[in-house]
Amino acid sequence: MAAGEIPCENLPPLRGVRVGTVMAGIRKANRRDLVVFALAPGATTAAVFTRNAFCAAPVIVARAHRAATTPQAWLINTGNANAGAGSAGETDARDCCAALARLLDCAPEAVLPFSTGVIGERLPVATLTTALPAAVAALRPDGWIDAAWGIMTTDTRPKAVSRSFVVAGQTVTLNGIAKGAGMIRPDMATMLAFLAVDARIAAPALQSALEHAVAQSFNCITVDGDTSTNDACCLAASGDGPALAPDCPEWPIFQAALDEVCLKLAQAIVRDGEGATKFITVRIEGARDALEARQVADAIAHSPLIKTAFFASDPNWGRILAAVGRAGMADLVLERVEIDLDEVSVVRQGGLDPAYREADGQAVMARTDITITVRLGRGTETVRIWTCDLSHDYVRINAEYRT
Amino acid sequence: MAAGEIPCENLPPLRGVRVGTVMAGIRKANRRDLVVFALAPGATTAAVFTRNAFCAAPVIVARAHRAATTPQAWLINTGNANAGAGSAGETDARDCCAALARLLDCAPEAVLPFSTGVIGERLPVATLTTALPAAVAALRPDGWIDAAWGIMTTDTRPKAVSRSFVVAGQTVTLNGIAKGAGMIRPDMATMLAFLAVDARIAAPALQSALEHAVAQSFNCITVDGDTSTNDACCLAASGDGPALAPDCPEWPIFQAALDEVCLKLAQAIVRDGEGATKFITVRIEGARDALEARQVADAIAHSPLIKTAFFASDPNWGRILAAVGRAGMADLVLERVEIDLDEVSVVRQGGLDPAYREADGQAVMARTDITITVRLGRGTETVRIWTCDLSHDYVRINAEYRT
Repeated sequence: MAAGEIPCENLPPLRGVRVGTVMAGIRKANRRDLVVFALAPGATTAAVFTRNAFCAAPVIVARAHRAATTPQAWLINTGNANAGAGSAGETDARDCCAALARLLDCAPEAVLPFSTGVIGERLPVATLTTALPAAVAALRPDGWIDAAWGIMTTDTRPKAVSRSFVVAGQTVTLNGIAKGAGMIRPDMATMLAFLAVDARIAAPALQSALEHAVAQSFNCITVDGDTSTNDACCLAASGDGPALAPDCPEWPIFQAALDEVCLKLAQAIVRDGEGATKFITVRIEGARDALEARQVADAIAHSPLIKTAFFASDPNWGRILAAVGRAGMADLVLERVEIDLDEVSVVRQGGLDPAYREADGQAVMARTDITITVRLGRGTETVRIWTCDLSHDYVRINAEYRT
Repeated sequence: MAAGEIPCENLPPLRGVRVGTVMAGIRKANRRDLVVFALAPGATTAAVFTRNAFCAAPVIVARAHRAATTPQAWLINTGNANAGAGSAGETDARDCCAALARLLDCAPEAVLPFSTGVIGERLPVATLTTALPAAVAALRPDGWIDAAWGIMTTDTRPKAVSRSFVVAGQTVTLNGIAKGAGMIRPDMATMLAFLAVDARIAAPALQSALEHAVAQSFNCITVDGDTSTNDACCLAASGDGPALAPDCPEWPIFQAALDEVCLKLAQAIVRDGEGATKFITVRIEGARDALEARQVADAIAHSPLIKTAFFASDPNWGRILAAVGRAGMADLVLERVEIDLDEVSVVRQGGLDPAYREADGQAVMARTDITITVRLGRGTETVRIWTCDLSHDYVRINAEYRT
């Protein structure tokens, strides 16, 4: 089940990036669950991580390793999040990095670890390191799609987006993969997403470009309002290609491609949200400021009542109105509030639009992609976020997750 | 389905309060859906209402009527919340009050209207007023239990609690009924709850007593985090009985009885929460202040991931840890965080307690009533709130609600 098409595009090889994916049997047998990215010497990287105070051990270690040296490899496992295991979890993450570093002949700190899966169990280090030689042997430039499969947990489909553009007569390719279907409410970070571009870009500029893209993509989605302990989004510039810098004429083209890849991957996460059958855009207009706009958008996007109504294709606008009402705005003038479902005017002057017909609302709800627009009439700020509905399958998936 | 026993106690007659319940056919046939409370002349009343900015028409009218004169009757319908209908909704509510006032021979402003049910549809005024003579004819002192049935919507059981105590040699009875199973996250108010005591109590003291009781009961429960547009809790002192005032020796006995009745009704709402199979007490200790304690409690109580894990009887403490981590505390020292499930120590020093055995956690999860205790190690503030799990039935009930 998914709400609409999940992009799984052809990911061409990138100069300077090799990817290897294997079945290590970390939690389940016969499942791709271990991915290695090897970056060319001279590559630069950028990254953003979860702001959950309980960040997982790999996030702690990845941050420390990034501070120590230039990353040359990403090591990703699914099946186990290595979160909540205390300092032992950090030791486990470091041991895995060291094992890969020996195989790649680099410093242990040049390996960044990422884990996703069950929280609160010790990482099976021996299982993981035993499979590393095979993963390294599998490294190849066209290994991206296998990796998109290899980082999945409760995702039903791999998520892969690629764009290319020309810099100084040379084609530059930007690839991205992402995973994440539940515990999705990124906070200045994402679920796991890995991107690379075959160009030479200085690390500070690369970090700025990534943060710009993330702010308008991964940070604007929510499935269930639960921010993960393991969120991470990494971008590598392999160095094997033309130089790019913020003052190049091609920089805006690169930023636009990066923004688009991130947005498509973020929306793919929502479309593949646990149990999702509807892809919902929540658009708030006329807010006093950005914080208020986001508060109202979140109140709608996190309301179990609205999400179940969408699952039932029920244009229950009263529940939307109630969520707006409890979003904590001071001095809200009800008579100015308007709500549209796609092109259908539903609420005008704080009450049901006299011209509204239930059949029109139901026609909108029959669609897979639906936009809720709320105009507050308080200012000029606008925000747009994406979420999905709450279905039987969400409960089933999350009730059965550890069984 | 309900999590544990829902109190439906015998409600003895109260001096000075008569209750009438009928089937008006407001939304469905053959269902008690219209309740009238008639208060003796000289009764005083207290009330608290929803803080949702989109409060329903009956809330607006009830507030205005309370400001205008002393209430003599409560008029409650289910099947239609009369919310989101704009100024027409207020006219509808006033017309119903006027119709009942004619039958009871009182001022229209002496009638307080309450509605619960579907949001966004016009109240069927003619259907309601046609049934009013029968409701008035049905008024009797022992009509309380019928009323407990008559105010139900998606509730599976009526909720009724009674306590009595002696004041100046005279037995005083306090009865309370409540409804509410979804859209439950009261904010300084409750779902619908109606209480009465056969004593003489000045209105200001009665209001203080009610606010004290509500703060620790209805305001400490959440089913789905959605604050209703129609929440209201009313308490009448019929005047037909001994005098009670804050400086009486019996006042603490009255306050304790009121606190207990409100707490039992509030907990009954959670136990009967839509689809609930588990009754969960969330206890936060060692917070810096009350706001922080409540933020952490809410992050846990509103987490769909934790609630589905409880539905599955899965002691998934990692999800609890993750919710604590995203609750917005500055400078949280992970190593001080402890989590217990009932008497079982699960998290110590921010990680899994080495002594924890999964079998112990599962033994706790097999219970219907479970307490999550989180010690933050940041201060001395404690808070306790109640919630329920998130089950298939929650989705089913809310997806099918308008069909």
